[in-house]
Amino acid sequence: MAVVVMQAWAAGSCKSTTSRHSKEQVADTRQPVKIYKANILYTPSAERLEVLAGGYIVVDANGRVEGTYPSLPEHLKDYPVTDYGDQLLIPAMNDLHLHAPQYRNTGIAMDMQLLEWLETYTFPEENRFASVDYARNIYSRFVHDLWLHGTMRSSIFASIHPQATMLLADLIDQSGMGAMVGLVGMNRNCPEYLQRSTCDYVSDMRQLIEHLEGMPRVSPILTPRFIPSCTDDMLDTISAIARQYNLPVQSHLSENPSEIEWVKQLQPESANYGDAYYRHGLFGHTPTLMAHCVHTDGEELELMARQGVVAVHCPTSNSNLASGTARVRHLMDGGVKVALGSDISGGNTMSMVAVMQHALQVSKIVQARTQGREKSLTVSEVMWLATKSGGAFFGQIGSFEPGYEFDALVIDDSNLASGHDYTLMQRLERFIYLGTPANITHRYCSGKDLPEPKIADIYNK
Amino acid sequence: MAVVVMQAWAAGSCKSTTSRHSKEQVADTRQPVKIYKANILYTPSAERLEVLAGGYIVVDANGRVEGTYPSLPEHLKDYPVTDYGDQLLIPAMNDLHLHAPQYRNTGIAMDMQLLEWLETYTFPEENRFASVDYARNIYSRFVHDLWLHGTMRSSIFASIHPQATMLLADLIDQSGMGAMVGLVGMNRNCPEYLQRSTCDYVSDMRQLIEHLEGMPRVSPILTPRFIPSCTDDMLDTISAIARQYNLPVQSHLSENPSEIEWVKQLQPESANYGDAYYRHGLFGHTPTLMAHCVHTDGEELELMARQGVVAVHCPTSNSNLASGTARVRHLMDGGVKVALGSDISGGNTMSMVAVMQHALQVSKIVQARTQGREKSLTVSEVMWLATKSGGAFFGQIGSFEPGYEFDALVIDDSNLASGHDYTLMQRLERFIYLGTPANITHRYCSGKDLPEPKIADIYNK
Repeated sequence: MAVVVMQAWAAGSCKSTTSRHSKEQVADTRQPVKIYKANILYTPSAERLEVLAGGYIVVDANGRVEGTYPSLPEHLKDYPVTDYGDQLLIPAMNDLHLHAPQYRNTGIAMDMQLLEWLETYTFPEENRFASVDYARNIYSRFVHDLWLHGTMRSSIFASIHPQATMLLADLIDQSGMGAMVGLVGMNRNCPEYLQRSTCDYVSDMRQLIEHLEGMPRVSPILTPRFIPSCTDDMLDTISAIARQYNLPVQSHLSENPSEIEWVKQLQPESANYGDAYYRHGLFGHTPTLMAHCVHTDGEELELMARQGVVAVHCPTSNSNLASGTARVRHLMDGGVKVALGSDISGGNTMSMVAVMQHALQVSKIVQARTQGREKSLTVSEVMWLATKSGGAFFGQIGSFEPGYEFDALVIDDSNLASGHDYTLMQRLERFIYLGTPANITHRYCSGKDLPEPKIADIYNK
Repeated sequence: MAVVVMQAWAAGSCKSTTSRHSKEQVADTRQPVKIYKANILYTPSAERLEVLAGGYIVVDANGRVEGTYPSLPEHLKDYPVTDYGDQLLIPAMNDLHLHAPQYRNTGIAMDMQLLEWLETYTFPEENRFASVDYARNIYSRFVHDLWLHGTMRSSIFASIHPQATMLLADLIDQSGMGAMVGLVGMNRNCPEYLQRSTCDYVSDMRQLIEHLEGMPRVSPILTPRFIPSCTDDMLDTISAIARQYNLPVQSHLSENPSEIEWVKQLQPESANYGDAYYRHGLFGHTPTLMAHCVHTDGEELELMARQGVVAVHCPTSNSNLASGTARVRHLMDGGVKVALGSDISGGNTMSMVAVMQHALQVSKIVQARTQGREKSLTVSEVMWLATKSGGAFFGQIGSFEPGYEFDALVIDDSNLASGHDYTLMQRLERFIYLGTPANITHRYCSGKDLPEPKIADIYNK
């Protein structure tokens, strides 16, 4: 079947033969066009938080960082400087796992665990995206809130609906932000209204890929929902497409004990849940995101590390759906790449700042439970997870090192810091623990200061 | 020693011979003076969330609720109505455990566990309250933020310093909010600069009690810091004062494994940490708050239930300081009264709304860890914990049933609910998960709409 579908794909009008993962870049001229002055903080590595009080950051014509400086170099003295005064300048947030069509359910309906929650709340809401009008209403708010919370890059599960998903991509493209967007593949173990055949999924994805052709920062990602909702045939077909066109893949892994048990029954030949993806060629064969990994350990953890699969830690969601507490330190110590996700709407907020906070807190709960054997995360580490570690999936994103795209947030924390002699590191910490979107005064993506996206008021219900 | 101190107390100018716990009330005339229309939500019991869409609440001349009505009763038709339109009206928040002199450390310095954290960050900061100027700077912000977050009643640990503590009481009194305020008693196992002898503590508390005489909603609470920082003599003396004048007591219990081990060494004759307080007459002999109870179980739990001691659950603090996860369902099932606390600055935010959210999330982590044996809390339950259950310590506070003081928050959640058909219950849930202080448009305490308290700008460092 996979072969048949691949032939259909090849015979179609899809012109893509080069890698879709990294879009071509405009030639790098490296002329400084913008210079910003602020209190600059960023994390070149997990343990290293760079702090430049009243420092300068120089951004070239391609929207990439040329360098950061404690004082302005002589040869740049004639360029105008945008001075953000005492505000903080940090890399923008990257959200590696969230479901756009679950936006309306954010902050409600979390009285169930995963499988029952999907059936009761999630699938019926996703079904509404058969209507493009409904999608425009919700997705315009979703895109607005990505911007609001300073999430400049995200990896998004849409629904099974190609029209609504192309609209979502349009809205993100128009906003100036970046994203990977995936049509959700599911052809079993879910309501019939949400099932698409493998053939239809392939044809829909092809349509989406073509639609995204001209977009500089929005690209497609193959998105089998999870093992239980995809037949072997669908998994094999998606894997074949992924490898032929070097498309990235995202899915869910080891979130909930009942789910893991179910996968064991569905794929009895697999050594573990991760191995079920691996056997179908969907586990690091191309760049791969696996959300949750709450119960990942042993052979599954080793396989992830070996295959370079990214574990997307979604702490708010794991808490809200009583999935358990992911052992991030254990994953990192085992060599697994980790990023952070809001997992809307298992997660209760799109704020990656709140997700960072909850990641810190959950890591301390794990530390207490393991009598200190698994050390909690530090402020520097969660900052790195939300910026450089997650950003790596999109390219040179999430740091202020030379060559990185200038994705940045300007933070006015005067309401948090007023009257006290906090260090810059402490001000960052207080923003993580106490900040709201109102503290973010500017949001840069690829060097552009993005204006507030418009909300579509199609109807109020 | 306790007897000597008590004689000194009796010989002093303290005129109190009646109960200090409930202040005398002005005669109840029960004339309706204020009528409010809004979407009214409150919790008469843990499981019961009352919802009145576009309902009316009638408040009498004493600031107490006369009744709630789905439509305005005929005999009240001539009274003016304050119409809050589509906004939500809920009981105000009650914070049963926080440390005012730790305000400046909120949202920073949480890289250590309890005992090391006290020595490194907390004690040096508390020492600064020897200066009344420093206290005015910090306490004016602290009181402002109680108001900002809609916390109309709180039970506060001040420091060892009587002048600063009287100033704190003054500022709360001026704001119109209610609180119990305690000078912290500690005479061992802490830096010398924070030790006060038992005699000095008694004399300081007497001074505080007299100072609070005329304040309608601010009253004293005896506050031995915790077993490790008080000698037997200090504990016995505080207990004697508590019983003679029926003063309430607050302290800490079973927060952290090292702390519990230490108490075992210090009080080897006690069966458990709670029993150490009990043996000194400080465990429900008068109304008693015990913060944390993370590791409370077995005999200690039974003793708490029997003695009517209130466990103040501080989930954000327990997570931040890696103390563990309190088993709130287990405590409640065992008959222990529970309330919520922000525990500034172990807790990272004064927002009791954020504390409710974290209480929900931690209870789900406990549910996951116990394979569902200990059911997570519901939205109704955390709302009840933050309002009626905590409010009970102050009198008839925290509900909109007849006779309750009208402590209320008006919530404009239009930025959270816009464009969607959420139920009122869902809007409350979204406020808990997504709200910020900016959503609170009015704060009522005892029937009065409180204006924003002023911040003292004595100096900026």
